[in-house]
Amino acid sequence: MHHHFRYWLPFLPEGVPAELTTPAEVARFELAQALPRIAPEVTVDIILDEAMDEAFRIQRADDAVIITGGQRGVLYGAYRLMMNLAAGEKLPRSHFQQPRYALRMVNNWDNADGDIERGYSGRSLMFEGGRFDYDPVCLCDLARLMASVGLNVLCINNVNVRNPAHRLIEDWLPELAEVAAIFRPFGVKLMVSIDYAQPMRHGIDTADPLDERVQTWWNEQCRVVYAAIPDLAGFLVKADSEHRPGPFTYGRNHAEGANMLARALQPHGGKLVWRCFVYNCQQDWRDQVTDRPMAAYQHYVYLDGQFDDNVILQVKNGPFDFQVREPVSPTLLAMPKTNLAIEWQLAQEYTGHQIDIYAMMGMWQEVMADLGSDRIMAMAAVSNLGRDACIFGHPFAAVNMFGYGLLSWHPEFADPEGIARLWAKLTYGLEQADEDALVQILLESRSAYEKYTAPLGVCWMVTPHTHYGPSPDGYEYQTWGTYHRASRDAVGIDRTASGTGYAEQYPSELRNRYSSLETCPDNLLLWFHRLRYDYVMRDGRTLIQRIYDDHFEGCEWVEAAEQKLAALPLPEADKALVMERISRQKKNAREWRDVINSFFYRFSGVEDAKGRKLYL
Amino acid sequence: MHHHFRYWLPFLPEGVPAELTTPAEVARFELAQALPRIAPEVTVDIILDEAMDEAFRIQRADDAVIITGGQRGVLYGAYRLMMNLAAGEKLPRSHFQQPRYALRMVNNWDNADGDIERGYSGRSLMFEGGRFDYDPVCLCDLARLMASVGLNVLCINNVNVRNPAHRLIEDWLPELAEVAAIFRPFGVKLMVSIDYAQPMRHGIDTADPLDERVQTWWNEQCRVVYAAIPDLAGFLVKADSEHRPGPFTYGRNHAEGANMLARALQPHGGKLVWRCFVYNCQQDWRDQVTDRPMAAYQHYVYLDGQFDDNVILQVKNGPFDFQVREPVSPTLLAMPKTNLAIEWQLAQEYTGHQIDIYAMMGMWQEVMADLGSDRIMAMAAVSNLGRDACIFGHPFAAVNMFGYGLLSWHPEFADPEGIARLWAKLTYGLEQADEDALVQILLESRSAYEKYTAPLGVCWMVTPHTHYGPSPDGYEYQTWGTYHRASRDAVGIDRTASGTGYAEQYPSELRNRYSSLETCPDNLLLWFHRLRYDYVMRDGRTLIQRIYDDHFEGCEWVEAAEQKLAALPLPEADKALVMERISRQKKNAREWRDVINSFFYRFSGVEDAKGRKLYL
Repeated sequence: MHHHFRYWLPFLPEGVPAELTTPAEVARFELAQALPRIAPEVTVDIILDEAMDEAFRIQRADDAVIITGGQRGVLYGAYRLMMNLAAGEKLPRSHFQQPRYALRMVNNWDNADGDIERGYSGRSLMFEGGRFDYDPVCLCDLARLMASVGLNVLCINNVNVRNPAHRLIEDWLPELAEVAAIFRPFGVKLMVSIDYAQPMRHGIDTADPLDERVQTWWNEQCRVVYAAIPDLAGFLVKADSEHRPGPFTYGRNHAEGANMLARALQPHGGKLVWRCFVYNCQQDWRDQVTDRPMAAYQHYVYLDGQFDDNVILQVKNGPFDFQVREPVSPTLLAMPKTNLAIEWQLAQEYTGHQIDIYAMMGMWQEVMADLGSDRIMAMAAVSNLGRDACIFGHPFAAVNMFGYGLLSWHPEFADPEGIARLWAKLTYGLEQADEDALVQILLESRSAYEKYTAPLGVCWMVTPHTHYGPSPDGYEYQTWGTYHRASRDAVGIDRTASGTGYAEQYPSELRNRYSSLETCPDNLLLWFHRLRYDYVMRDGRTLIQRIYDDHFEGCEWVEAAEQKLAALPLPEADKALVMERISRQKKNAREWRDVINSFFYRFSGVEDAKGRKLYL
Repeated sequence: MHHHFRYWLPFLPEGVPAELTTPAEVARFELAQALPRIAPEVTVDIILDEAMDEAFRIQRADDAVIITGGQRGVLYGAYRLMMNLAAGEKLPRSHFQQPRYALRMVNNWDNADGDIERGYSGRSLMFEGGRFDYDPVCLCDLARLMASVGLNVLCINNVNVRNPAHRLIEDWLPELAEVAAIFRPFGVKLMVSIDYAQPMRHGIDTADPLDERVQTWWNEQCRVVYAAIPDLAGFLVKADSEHRPGPFTYGRNHAEGANMLARALQPHGGKLVWRCFVYNCQQDWRDQVTDRPMAAYQHYVYLDGQFDDNVILQVKNGPFDFQVREPVSPTLLAMPKTNLAIEWQLAQEYTGHQIDIYAMMGMWQEVMADLGSDRIMAMAAVSNLGRDACIFGHPFAAVNMFGYGLLSWHPEFADPEGIARLWAKLTYGLEQADEDALVQILLESRSAYEKYTAPLGVCWMVTPHTHYGPSPDGYEYQTWGTYHRASRDAVGIDRTASGTGYAEQYPSELRNRYSSLETCPDNLLLWFHRLRYDYVMRDGRTLIQRIYDDHFEGCEWVEAAEQKLAALPLPEADKALVMERISRQKKNAREWRDVINSFFYRFSGVEDAKGRKLYL
C-alpha cells in the first residue's frame, strides 16, 4: 500500500506498529495520531467492558469523549469516532452501536500463484509464485481498513482451491499463523478455503463424507490447524460446482457433506461456510425446461433444518451470478431453519472490472429491502483488492469496500447517499459543490452502467470468459444455462408459472410482483417475461425504443461524467487513475451501446424514433 | 513416428540408415527393401544424370526397370515406381516426369516452446521447452514421407517468430545444421522463419530496410548462416501483419522490405519468401467501406515488378484466411511480373481440427482451375504434422499431405479421385468395395463439412480464437474485418461494384461470373451478395430453405459415414482413432446444424418446409 493512497483514512498517516497486539492498544494508537489532525480539542478515554464484545458506546461531554466496549468494540468505536470527527459530523451525547451480524466477511479469490480470479486490481497481496509473498506493512494497513468499517473475517484464498493452496492448512500453517497475527490486533480473523477432496492427497481413496477415514482425517487436521491458529474463523468450501469435487461424487447430499466438516471444526469453535453455487454448467442450450436460476433452491431448500449449528450456507445475492441486475435469490427466503449468509461481489466481474465506475450501494439497498435483514445471520463479499498502487484498482471502487463494511455492520444504516457522502468527505474533503458532483456520479453510476449494458434484466450479453464488453450472443448457444432467446419478434425468458416456473420459488408477495406485467419492475421485465419488441412499457414507449433510449442515455452519462471528473480537484494520483479509467469506460460504453442497439435493430428492423444512428 | 503408422509407405518398414548421405543411395536402399515385398520379380537399375536434376525417366523392359535422373530425380523416380508397383498400376514402357514447380514447400508453425500454432496433431516434432528436441529417426521418416511425394522444402518454425526462435539463425546454427543433414539425403532443404526486427536484438535501434546498419547486419548474418548450412532454402517472413513488425513501421513499402533481405540472401543462392497476409486487424465493425479481403491486393499489386528475382510472394489461396469456401485470391491473378507462391493450409484450422474428416483435393482442383498453373512458380502448405502417435492427428488427414505433394509436383495430375484412390490403396490395401467406400467418404467430406458449417460462402461463423465449432455472431462485432451482417431480412455482404467493389479486383471472366446472380456459384452466393431469406435459388428453393437443407444433410452425412467407417476393416490403431474422431465430428456437426439453423430461424421466422426441428 503506497502512502499517497490512504483511502478513507487520510488522517492516519502512520502505520500501526507491529508491537501492538490488542485492539484496545490499536485504538489508543490510532486516536493519538488522528486527534491532533482532525479534532485537537477532543480528548478520548477508553474503557474496556469485555462483556460488550463488538459493541461500543460513545459518550460525550463537551470535548471529553469516553468509548466503552469490548476489545473489538472500543476499536470499532474509535474508528467511528475518528470518521465522524473527520467528516465534521455532530456527535450525539450518547451513541450505542452493535453489529447486526456476527460474521462480516471478505473473501479473497487469490490463487497461490499470485493470480486473482476475477481480480482487477493487480496481483495478490498474499501470494506469488506458489507461496506466501506479502508486505506485512501492507497487510497491516489492509487490516486497519477492514476494522475501520467493522469487517472481521478475511478468507485469504480462492474458493477454487488449486495446488498448492491446499498446503495452507498443512505445511504452510506456520506462515498462516504469522499472517493471522498481523490481522489479530484489528479484530480480523482469518478463514481458509479448503479443497473438499483434500484427504485424497493423503492416501485415502475417497472424500466420501460418510467414510470414517475421511472424518478421522479432517478431525485430526482441524486439531493441527487450531493448535497453530486457535482463533481461525473456519473453512470456506465450494463443492460440486463448476468442476469442483464435492459430496455428490459419493451420492451424498450437501447437508451430509457440510456437516462432516462442521463436526471437525466444532470442538475448536470454527465455522463451516458452504457456498450454495451449484448448477449444471453442461446444460444443452436447446433445453428450455431447465432454468439455471432455479438450481440453488432445488439443491438446498429441501435440506432446511438439516445443517449443524456451525454451518453457514453462503448464497449469492441473486440466483444467477452477480449480474448487473438480479432479483434477490429465492433460496435466501426459503430456509428459515438454516444459518444463511448473503454473498456480494465487490470485484466488478460483470460490472466493469474496476475500469467503469459502479457504486454498489443502490443494489444492496434494493436487495435488502426485498430480503429483510433477519433472514440472514452473516454477510460475505468477494474482495476487489490487489497489489496495484491503488489496491481497489479504481480509486472510487474503494467506496464499495467502505460501504460494504457499513452495510454488513448494520444494513439499516446503509443508505446509498449516506455512504457515498461519508466516503467522499473522508477520502477527499472537497468543497461542497465538488463533493455533491462526486456523490451524484457515484449514486448514478450503477444505473448508467445498467443502461448501456444488457437491457432490462436480460443478463449475460457479455463477452464470454473475460466478462467485460458486449457479446449479445456470446453465451447464447453455450452450456452455461444463460440464454435470452432473442428472435425477430421477442426477447427474454418467461420465468412465471406459465414458463419455467422460477417465480414460483418466491413467497407470494414477490411471486405476484414479478409474475404480473403490471407490477414487475421495468429493470426486471426481461428476467421474468418474454416480450415482443412492440410491447408498450408503462411510460408509453415500446420495448425496443426503451432499449435504444437506455443505451444512448447510458453512454451520454459517461461522456458527461468524464467532463465533470475532469473538473474535480482530486489528488494527483487519484485524478490520473480516474481520468485514464473514464476514458476506457467511455470506449466500453460506446461499444456496448452500438453493439446492443445493432443486435436488436437487426432482429426487430425498427428504426430509432429519434433518428439516431443504428448499424445494420 | 511409431512403427504401426507407416502411412502410405507400409512397404518400407525399415528406417533409412543415417550413414546414407545422397538421394541416390537412399533410392537404392528403399528399392532394396521394398521390391521383395511388392514386386519380387522386378529389378531396378539407377543411372545418374545430374543434368536432369529433379526430373526422372522410368524405362521398363519386362521386369527390368531403369530409373534415370539427377540425384533427386532418381529418388523421386524410385518412390514413384514403388508406389506404382504397390498400387498394382500398370507401368508404361517409358515414363518421364519433371516437377511443375521448383519449390514445393511445407511450412511448420512450430514454436520453440514446443507448441504448434494451429496444430492439431500434438506437440512439435522439432522443439520443446525453448530448444531443439527431436527424434532423429522420426525426422528421417518425415523426410522420407516428404520425398516420396516430391516435397523439397521444409520451413521448420512458425512464421510468428517468438523468442527464442530467432536464435535459429544465430547460436542455434550448429543444431540447425544437424537437422538439415537429416533431411538432405532426401532432397529436402530447410527454410527458417525470421523476425523482421531481428537486428534490433543486436544494438541497432531500427529495422528500417533502407538503413545501412540493418543491411550490413543481415548481409553478415547471412554469411554466417550459409557458412553453417550452404544449401539452406532461404528465409520466410510474415511482416506487418497481426502485430508483427515490418517495413511499414519505417514508412517503407513491402518491396523495399523484402528486397533488402533478398539481397543479403542472393550471394548464397537463398530465396526470400514473403507472406502477403496484411490487413487491418483493428477494423471498426461499424465500418462498411473497408473490406478485409481487398487488403492484400491493395498492399501488393501496385508493387508488381519491383521485387528482386529471388523474392517469392506467398499468397494464401483465398483472400480471407483459409475459410471453408473462398474464391481464388485476386492478388494471385494480378502480379505477372512477380514470383508468386500459393499457400494452402493442411492444418485444419477452420476445417475441423483433424477431428472432422476434410480431404482438400476438391478445393485445390477448383482453385487451380480458376488460377491456372502458370501464374505461380511455387507452392507452400501449412503443415498438419505433430508428435501424436499418428503424426497427422487423424489417419485420413495423411491424404492431404500426400495429395499436396502430388499437387505441387504437377497440378495437372492431381485429380481428387486419383489422389484419394492411390492414397487408400497404398495405405490400407482394402478390397475394392471397401476402398470405394473409403474413397467416397474422402471425396464427399469437404462438401459435407461445408454444408453443416457457415452457409454458402458467408464464412467466419466459427468460435473465435479456437476456430472449432459454431459461433454465428462470434466475429460479428469484433475488429477482424469478418462480418456477415445477418438481419431479420437478409444476410451477406455485397462485394460487387455496387457494394465494396471487391469483385472488381478480378479479371473480367471471374468478375463477371461472381458479380452476376445468374452465374455466381451457389456456394459463393453469400460471399459476393447480400440476399434476402426468400431469395429463390436456381433450383427453386428459397435461400433460407437451402440453409436448413444443407445443415440437415451435412449432419446426416456424418451419421452415415460413421456407420460406413464402423464396417471398414482398417488396421486396429487407425480404426480406433477414426472411430473416436467421427463420434466427435458427429457431435460437432449436430451442434453446427442446430446453432446455424436456430440463428437463421430466429432472424427469419421461417419454419423448415420439411417440418424438422428448429430451436427458438
